Amino acid sequence: MTPQQKAEAAAKLMYDDDRASRALGMELLEVRPGYARMRMTVRVEFTNGHGICHGGFIFLLADSTFAFACNSHNQRAVAAGAAIDFVAPAHEGDVLTAEGVEQHLGKRNGVYDMRVTDQHGHLIALFRGRSATIKGRFFDETPGEQS
Amino acid sequence: MTPQQKAEAAAKLMYDDDRASRALGMELLEVRPGYARMRMTVRVEFTNGHGICHGGFIFLLADSTFAFACNSHNQRAVAAGAAIDFVAPAHEGDVLTAEGVEQHLGKRNGVYDMRVTDQHGHLIALFRGRSATIKGRFFDETPGEQS
Amino acid sequence: MTPQQKAEAAAKLMYDDDRASRALGMELLEVRPGYARMRMTVRVEFTNGHGICHGGFIFLLADSTFAFACNSHNQRAVAAGAAIDFVAPAHEGDVLTAEGVEQHLGKRNGVYDMRVTDQHGHLIALFRGRSATIKGRFFDETPGEQS
Amino acid sequence: MTPQQKAEAAAKLMYDDDRASRALGMELLEVRPGYARMRMTVRVEFTNGHGICHGGFIFLLADSTFAFACNSHNQRAVAAGAAIDFVAPAHEGDVLTAEGVEQHLGKRNGVYDMRVTDQHGHLIALFRGRSATIKGRFFDETPGEQS
Repeated sequence: MTPQQKAEAAAKLMYDDDRASRALGMELLEVRPGYARMRMTVRVEFTNGHGICHGGFIFLLADSTFAFACNSHNQRAVAAGAAIDFVAPAHEGDVLTAEGVEQHLGKRNGVYDMRVTDQHGHLIALFRGRSATIKGRFFDETPGEQS
Repeated sequence: MTPQQKAEAAAKLMYDDDRASRALGMELLEVRPGYARMRMTVRVEFTNGHGICHGGFIFLLADSTFAFACNSHNQRAVAAGAAIDFVAPAHEGDVLTAEGVEQHLGKRNGVYDMRVTDQHGHLIALFRGRSATIKGRFFDETPGEQS
Repeated sequence: MTPQQKAEAAAKLMYDDDRASRALGMELLEVRPGYARMRMTVRVEFTNGHGICHGGFIFLLADSTFAFACNSHNQRAVAAGAAIDFVAPAHEGDVLTAEGVEQHLGKRNGVYDMRVTDQHGHLIALFRGRSATIKGRFFDETPGEQS
Repeated sequence: MTPQQKAEAAAKLMYDDDRASRALGMELLEVRPGYARMRMTVRVEFTNGHGICHGGFIFLLADSTFAFACNSHNQRAVAAGAAIDFVAPAHEGDVLTAEGVEQHLGKRNGVYDMRVTDQHGHLIALFRGRSATIKGRFFDETPGEQS
């Protein structure tokens, strides 16, 4: 399998089990080794007491995208932490896209940067996630097992 | 009105409009000037592709609690950014509580620290949010208007 | 040895080797298990192009204090990352104190919060550091080896 | 004046007043609108109690570079906060370079990402800084004043 085939296979298995991302209507648009891109529409129930999209849902989209990027090598990894800067509000009906790449991958940890933009290409938020490698893979990479 | 009465009045108005927090089943347990405490049960649709609670929902609970704390002075404020450290996983059925206080409040920005624990009192995550003051209040503080 | 004795012994050995903290005039005022407090005076060569203390030196003081706190168990640990919020400027001649405690200590990582204040007790910065445990101790804890 | 001329003029005035960066031997290699690159050699007095470069000095280099990037528009700005991930240790004699660009610039705040690498091009740290605009410029931009 090529790295790209591994990334797609791991993403498919992970997405099928990811109730949270699916329940929120997130689409996985693209995955590559160390990279992912997802899309989500802001629903009315994502809005907060100021009438704008709750920042937590913007974080959720970026965090899911980060998860697909950092699991794209078929080595399980979880979020150890993350930071987000909110630069513009999002509103009901906006179509948000999160996209980002691996900045660093070490033995135990990785760093990934995600950008969230709206349907006009305007920047909504910048997210940086730190991953921690855990045991396990999404599928066995032994030759002959994948056929 | 005392600061405590203002905190409770602002929180009530804000919670009534906060579709996101209500849709996720968050309860506002307590609010004081610069302080808030909320509770949320982890639903099956909050779980991710690793079978544990998606970190984004832990963030959401902390972020909502932060929002109630930083709006408790009846001066509207939004999240400018936040950082979270995930220290232990949460699972379906866990009852999470976020609680935290104001560490700093300046003219334009504030800093708030939230701790998320589970029903056993175990630490799940540490969150630090930065607020930015915006125009507007939840209710008019002019004497005679509140009666 | 009690935990307090271990904290003091580890801090003494570490401070003796810490050329950076000593060259900057930092004093280690107190160390306890998971806790440290240090003091530093802002020198003219710490000031930046705006005529105020370079934020990097405020970070340095907090980072050193964090290092003493997270190494206080006689288990070597290094900084994996840190975040700082600058809330007020410091000036030449100001005497800054950083103080902080362990918020979490796991097998591989810890989280520590430091507050930096000036000689008037005014808050200058809030710092959160993440430690990563590495191999090694400052001294052998085997009974009979410490005499 | 072109944006590039303004960036160079502001940087020169700021660097001349920046005692901290000069005392640490930092060289400003390049500045462009929203971008800066600086270099610093790790001195023995930058080393800590583990015998490696104190993370605070790595932060300092990144923070100075961030300062030149965020002041490159001839509008004064200070650091409101920053976060750093340390990915590899640096040692005495290493020649570190920090380089980075503006990710976002709003009315009151900006976000800048810096990468610190060593003389072999290996990544040492990732830094993200948030700037806050303050009053003042480095030089008057009125036509006729700059000749």
